[in-house]
Amino acid sequence: MTRFFVPPEELNISFMVLTGENAAHAKVLRLKNGEQVMVCDGQGAECICTVSDVSSGQISLVVNSVQKSSSEPSVKVSIYMAFPKSDKLEHVIQKATELGAYEIVAFPSARCISRPDEKSLQKKKERWQKIAASASEQSGRGHIPEIIILGSYSEAISRAIQADKAILFYENEHATTLRMALETGTYHSVSLLTGPEGGLEDGEVEKARRAGMEICTLGSRILRCETAPLCALSAVMYHTGEF
Amino acid sequence: MTRFFVPPEELNISFMVLTGENAAHAKVLRLKNGEQVMVCDGQGAECICTVSDVSSGQISLVVNSVQKSSSEPSVKVSIYMAFPKSDKLEHVIQKATELGAYEIVAFPSARCISRPDEKSLQKKKERWQKIAASASEQSGRGHIPEIIILGSYSEAISRAIQADKAILFYENEHATTLRMALETGTYHSVSLLTGPEGGLEDGEVEKARRAGMEICTLGSRILRCETAPLCALSAVMYHTGEF
Repeated sequence: MTRFFVPPEELNISFMVLTGENAAHAKVLRLKNGEQVMVCDGQGAECICTVSDVSSGQISLVVNSVQKSSSEPSVKVSIYMAFPKSDKLEHVIQKATELGAYEIVAFPSARCISRPDEKSLQKKKERWQKIAASASEQSGRGHIPEIIILGSYSEAISRAIQADKAILFYENEHATTLRMALETGTYHSVSLLTGPEGGLEDGEVEKARRAGMEICTLGSRILRCETAPLCALSAVMYHTGEF
Repeated sequence: MTRFFVPPEELNISFMVLTGENAAHAKVLRLKNGEQVMVCDGQGAECICTVSDVSSGQISLVVNSVQKSSSEPSVKVSIYMAFPKSDKLEHVIQKATELGAYEIVAFPSARCISRPDEKSLQKKKERWQKIAASASEQSGRGHIPEIIILGSYSEAISRAIQADKAILFYENEHATTLRMALETGTYHSVSLLTGPEGGLEDGEVEKARRAGMEICTLGSRILRCETAPLCALSAVMYHTGEF
């Protein structure tokens, strides 16, 4: 079933009108009266609707039923990624959205090669948010991960440790596995932090440890910066019973 | 430590000479007498060596020690992927190699959009094998996954079921999880089979089931064809104690 996302305030329990990009998309799909579509608010609520009228620039829908999205994971996983080169971040946003990430947080760290300036960031953020929206739609999610940009590594740590469990992956950690971290305690939210192309510095890892993050290995193979968060996210989803 | 791969017959326990691409690579790295490098046979044996002479087109090495690679997973995981569009297969080869795949098998299935012909396949296979070799080197592996091309879906099934455990992922399967499959029995080898952009056909899935493959879900989100094998591989590595 085709999925449309609307802002939460536009979700109505009886009747809705799709306009703008949604209407353009519906036109491309040649939606007809009587067809069923799904309308989501991007925050976990979904309406199954029937198309009641198709006219230029707008699609009218009658709402059949409202439900809580069944495709959202039980644990909210936040991906914290030090800025990689731009195409890699886009890759991670798309894939992490498919895999069920709750939000994706990008931040600078000491060895980041890519350091987008304030001005270009605003434009890029819009683009990244669109990538997340499109991946949510295609993968059938009920929630669009928010793309959050932080100004410093310290901010990233302070925010990451707000989760019930906060894990940093470091290639020089060999003793503590992700499994050890995930088998301890109960949690409804998890932060997963990974470094940029050149890795995190020892001092940065220490800072995270002192702030309360758990430092884990992702195994004895060295993963690229864009592979590590997706590998970790897949493992957390598996561990928490998603598949 | 820089890693070079040589054919198994060139691995020597006392003295070695690197030539060709390896020597060119060593030149780029400006290797000097006395530096240590690792030489692997791509099949799990590794030699730690000291550079004893650098001359035009060849690097002489004295072998310090020979060991079994410590970065190879305990379970051999074979990725079976129906031909996706070419850039996606290259992506999967690179990432699956990093993540520890033992081999990567590509084959045609009913809904494949991409159907490379015999002639172009030979050239492509060489390219794909190079991608695997390069990813092995960068991720510090002791084994280079072999890229195997099969001519039909039937061949893929027949080969996949030779593993101790053979799993096919299907978006219309909702009851059997990957965890259920992995928690049953003991195994040293696992086949993971996924479909092309348009998915596998019901009939193809039934054929695999009758042949003895387990049909599993990867969760309630629909994954792209290039995301599914990497998500499954990450989960198997996690389950089998790699991290």
